[in-house]
Amino acid sequence: MEMVEEHRIFAGQQQRWRHTSSVLQCEMTFSIFIPPARHDAPPPVLYWLSGLTCNDENFTTKAGAQRVAAELGIVLVMPDTSPRGDAVADDDAYDLGKGAGFYLNATREPWAAHYRMYDYLRDELPALIRSHFTVGERESIFGHSMGGHGALVMALRNPGRFRSVSAFAPIVNPAAVPWGEKAFSAYLGDDRAAWQAWDSCALMENADAMLPTLIDQGESDNFLEGQLKPERLAAVAKAKGWPLELRMQPGYDHSYYFIASFVEDHLRFHAQHLFS
Amino acid sequence: MEMVEEHRIFAGQQQRWRHTSSVLQCEMTFSIFIPPARHDAPPPVLYWLSGLTCNDENFTTKAGAQRVAAELGIVLVMPDTSPRGDAVADDDAYDLGKGAGFYLNATREPWAAHYRMYDYLRDELPALIRSHFTVGERESIFGHSMGGHGALVMALRNPGRFRSVSAFAPIVNPAAVPWGEKAFSAYLGDDRAAWQAWDSCALMENADAMLPTLIDQGESDNFLEGQLKPERLAAVAKAKGWPLELRMQPGYDHSYYFIASFVEDHLRFHAQHLFS
Repeated sequence: MEMVEEHRIFAGQQQRWRHTSSVLQCEMTFSIFIPPARHDAPPPVLYWLSGLTCNDENFTTKAGAQRVAAELGIVLVMPDTSPRGDAVADDDAYDLGKGAGFYLNATREPWAAHYRMYDYLRDELPALIRSHFTVGERESIFGHSMGGHGALVMALRNPGRFRSVSAFAPIVNPAAVPWGEKAFSAYLGDDRAAWQAWDSCALMENADAMLPTLIDQGESDNFLEGQLKPERLAAVAKAKGWPLELRMQPGYDHSYYFIASFVEDHLRFHAQHLFS
Repeated sequence: MEMVEEHRIFAGQQQRWRHTSSVLQCEMTFSIFIPPARHDAPPPVLYWLSGLTCNDENFTTKAGAQRVAAELGIVLVMPDTSPRGDAVADDDAYDLGKGAGFYLNATREPWAAHYRMYDYLRDELPALIRSHFTVGERESIFGHSMGGHGALVMALRNPGRFRSVSAFAPIVNPAAVPWGEKAFSAYLGDDRAAWQAWDSCALMENADAMLPTLIDQGESDNFLEGQLKPERLAAVAKAKGWPLELRMQPGYDHSYYFIASFVEDHLRFHAQHLFS
């Protein structure tokens, strides 16, 4: 593992690392923010999963999260959104292939060889983080759009693993919206039953263990009606008594300006559960 | 004047505008943050001047300034760093031509036709802002690196115009460092006497009217010794009793991670003078 960049920010360290992923069979890059020491115990880890077309740097440079993470004493880990490199299959579209891994394990060619972002994020990357950095055992996860989908799926499929989950404008029902239908058809094939394992609405319906869940959604988000549909997850949550807070934010769109506006709320929400 | 982008952020509006500049003889783009209404009086304006290679979006997306500007009720205006377009002279180097206007009025060809950023920023852009937006009369100015030079020069050449000036890692003595020598030779010619009108150290030495001045400088900035040399301006300030605070920040580099870490201090510094 090799550090490729390091900057001081809010008295902590923003670093960028390159490593060879055995799960993804390619070189990967991730970013990490290490806060100044705030507590006697090693800091908990909050994973951020980005949306379509992003890499590890979008949240790192645009969200303004380090200020609050430094204050609270939380490590932020920002992975990439897909496997990378010349050997990795790709597609010309922005919503399939590189930059659009959808945080799942692909089963169809040409994707299955490298597109295993779920295993990478569940096992390989956290092991790497724990072995190279001084971090506590507690973890939470959040993300944006495709990454909100990824964060919810990761939390729902691994009960007890995360203390809390949150999302900005997540794709909550990918099995039934155009972005998800396109990606799942390619990565998983046409058997829609197999898609349910990667769909937050379906996973929550069948989940036993609940965890605190926060979702912010801009009301002026161009993708709200066609792709995001947070009311579907809210309906599942309501039927189950799931501790989901869905906040509709008037005037906000799908951009990082929206994320920057509410990232402090999300960090404080996670801190409440990471330090309780 | 045409709005090309608009996003809600921290309950304010982040907008991007395109207009034809008669001073620069080309199309220009600027960004503006309009805070939510905080006071009865129209909000004051704080101009941000960016550094080499930047445009109006670097500070807009990376500095995290809108959060504090929204709280304080300050309009932020982010201009571009040079004239733009196919008709405008350019150079292959990153530190001359487009993206490197040095906030002066060029007198030598091929630059003189379009490179008049000083006049654009002193007169044309503020008049445009005042005619299209509801803003108060009070103004302050700040910037980074080449833009820190620009902010200081603008304040020093226009006594009484700005309430306060601040800078991150400014080029304070361009007439005597490589970046400035290269740019001034090209834009102004070889007569070094003419350079003094665009050099903060020289301008401060000859200034009568003082204004509150804050400079932050990272001690791990790669350009500190070769290009920035803030101690030279601090020496001039000390000799004159100028109200300059120079803060050396251990571990910080030249990047927006440094700017983001201290931008709140700068906004509160300017607010203190804009609202007093």
